[in-house]
Amino acid sequence: MQRAGANAVKAMIDDVIVEKLDVEKIFSSSKRTFRIADLGCSVGPNTFVAMQNITDAVQLKYQSQGFASQMPEFQVFFNDHASNDFNTLFASLPPERPYFATAVPGSFHGRLLPNFSLDFVYSSYALQCLSKVPEELLNKNSAAWNKGRVHYASAPDEVAQAFTTQFAKDKTAFLDCRAKELVVGGLMVLMPGIPNGIPHSSSLTGGIFDFLGQCLMVDTFNLPVYFASPKEMTRLLERNECFSIERMEITLPYARADGLIVQACAMHLRAGMEGIISKHFGVEIIDELFDPFCKKEEEFISMLESKYNEGDQLFIVLKRI
Amino acid sequence: MQRAGANAVKAMIDDVIVEKLDVEKIFSSSKRTFRIADLGCSVGPNTFVAMQNITDAVQLKYQSQGFASQMPEFQVFFNDHASNDFNTLFASLPPERPYFATAVPGSFHGRLLPNFSLDFVYSSYALQCLSKVPEELLNKNSAAWNKGRVHYASAPDEVAQAFTTQFAKDKTAFLDCRAKELVVGGLMVLMPGIPNGIPHSSSLTGGIFDFLGQCLMVDTFNLPVYFASPKEMTRLLERNECFSIERMEITLPYARADGLIVQACAMHLRAGMEGIISKHFGVEIIDELFDPFCKKEEEFISMLESKYNEGDQLFIVLKRI
Repeated sequence: MQRAGANAVKAMIDDVIVEKLDVEKIFSSSKRTFRIADLGCSVGPNTFVAMQNITDAVQLKYQSQGFASQMPEFQVFFNDHASNDFNTLFASLPPERPYFATAVPGSFHGRLLPNFSLDFVYSSYALQCLSKVPEELLNKNSAAWNKGRVHYASAPDEVAQAFTTQFAKDKTAFLDCRAKELVVGGLMVLMPGIPNGIPHSSSLTGGIFDFLGQCLMVDTFNLPVYFASPKEMTRLLERNECFSIERMEITLPYARADGLIVQACAMHLRAGMEGIISKHFGVEIIDELFDPFCKKEEEFISMLESKYNEGDQLFIVLKRI
Repeated sequence: MQRAGANAVKAMIDDVIVEKLDVEKIFSSSKRTFRIADLGCSVGPNTFVAMQNITDAVQLKYQSQGFASQMPEFQVFFNDHASNDFNTLFASLPPERPYFATAVPGSFHGRLLPNFSLDFVYSSYALQCLSKVPEELLNKNSAAWNKGRVHYASAPDEVAQAFTTQFAKDKTAFLDCRAKELVVGGLMVLMPGIPNGIPHSSSLTGGIFDFLGQCLMVDTFNLPVYFASPKEMTRLLERNECFSIERMEITLPYARADGLIVQACAMHLRAGMEGIISKHFGVEIIDELFDPFCKKEEEFISMLESKYNEGDQLFIVLKRI
């Protein structure tokens, strides 16, 4: 599913680079090396596909702008938490890659790289990650005590509000850090989020997490993720003042809901959430958890069908000004 | 032992940075970020000590030269083979480090980083590593068939010559790559090697590898390492033409040979060679191999004593011109 997403996104990225990348400006500040970061890269192979797409598109752009003879070298910074399996990432790097590969361990809510050291930031399925679960959710005496759920979808307002506040705090730090690391004219592509004006419980992601919550049925575990709307992101960006919003749109779903998509969806969710869940409950639970998830296939498909039509993926393009 | 080496080397590195680092030149080419690479970093902690020492010394130099207000940010590139355990390296990174940490997987006999992207290269116990064992050593019909030994020390001339040729080929590639990656004025510190004018079998490293060979007693395994003399290194550098030799000297041994040093030496050897040996013979052999090594303590000490006095470590400082 993430690969399908990367492919669907490829055309949009190509577009962004053709329309928005100011080669002359980038060239005057970075000259010799075009530096790209994938924030939340995981272990591959999706990140390799995305990085290849971006370098291809930038090379084409340089050629079309008459900079073919001054083609830069490319350097990719693969970023994820220090606990990410970078050994596996390194073992599966494409041997014929058109870039120098480097890894940067650490949370993207903090600084990762020196000032003005990036020309392009890509983060395909990580914008929703929080630095932690809001603390009040684990306090039995708080109005935001999130009994019987793992998420804010379908939860009382206080719970959703706690997540909204945590997201705003984390992404403010995220934007401050990236504003320092990007060169002026540098681009940043961020995903995902949800459409404006729908309750979290009506969104596709909300539906999926409700489903997951029904499988877990616990009181003291919450997923540290939050899917923001264009309106929320715009507000944070206006406060930051270092970026122009070049694009902010809800895209169509990756693929239609059919039999296969349930498996794909469960696998996708599993890939993204396995670390967090097994850290809390132990590795043993994982198979048990995702098995019933797949068994409720019909119910799951009809949920997906009902939420798919409005588009489900927020796609944001920013330029460092 | 490697840590003892790093400490002994610290004073020399401090000296190099005080005397040889041209801050004005570096500043005009890199400005905002001072980039350091440790080639052959392994998994720590020695690399962390070395990187801290280098950043401390560079900061002092910037201050003493009146650049305190324009202090650069530091970025360290930890390099080793892609099969190195970078997960362990990342897990043990000092939390309060004064630099941005990144990892670069790959052989340093090839390109690792973009043009002009390094200000300082450090390689403390890796210069001796070859990209492979010379092929003729494994050919029974060759004059360089290395029966009953794992190394060229105490071997026929043809064996030593095959190693010398492989070393020259590998280090020519190494110097070509580093000449591209270093900025003009950038420094490179390389270790180790052996003194001029002594046969390989008389050197400390030669003695140690002879010892190891007696424990292994095989015909088809050779260690892909070679310890060069100042004369050999000078010849390769003159051919490369991109570096000035700022220092090239044999240093005193890290520590005196006493009871403890045998264990330390075996541990050191084990750390450096375990990967290569267990890949060939299987993990099971390792304990078995290094146990008799330690049991021949007296014999080993007298060998160390006899070879120690002349100094045993080649220390090289180069500047990219």
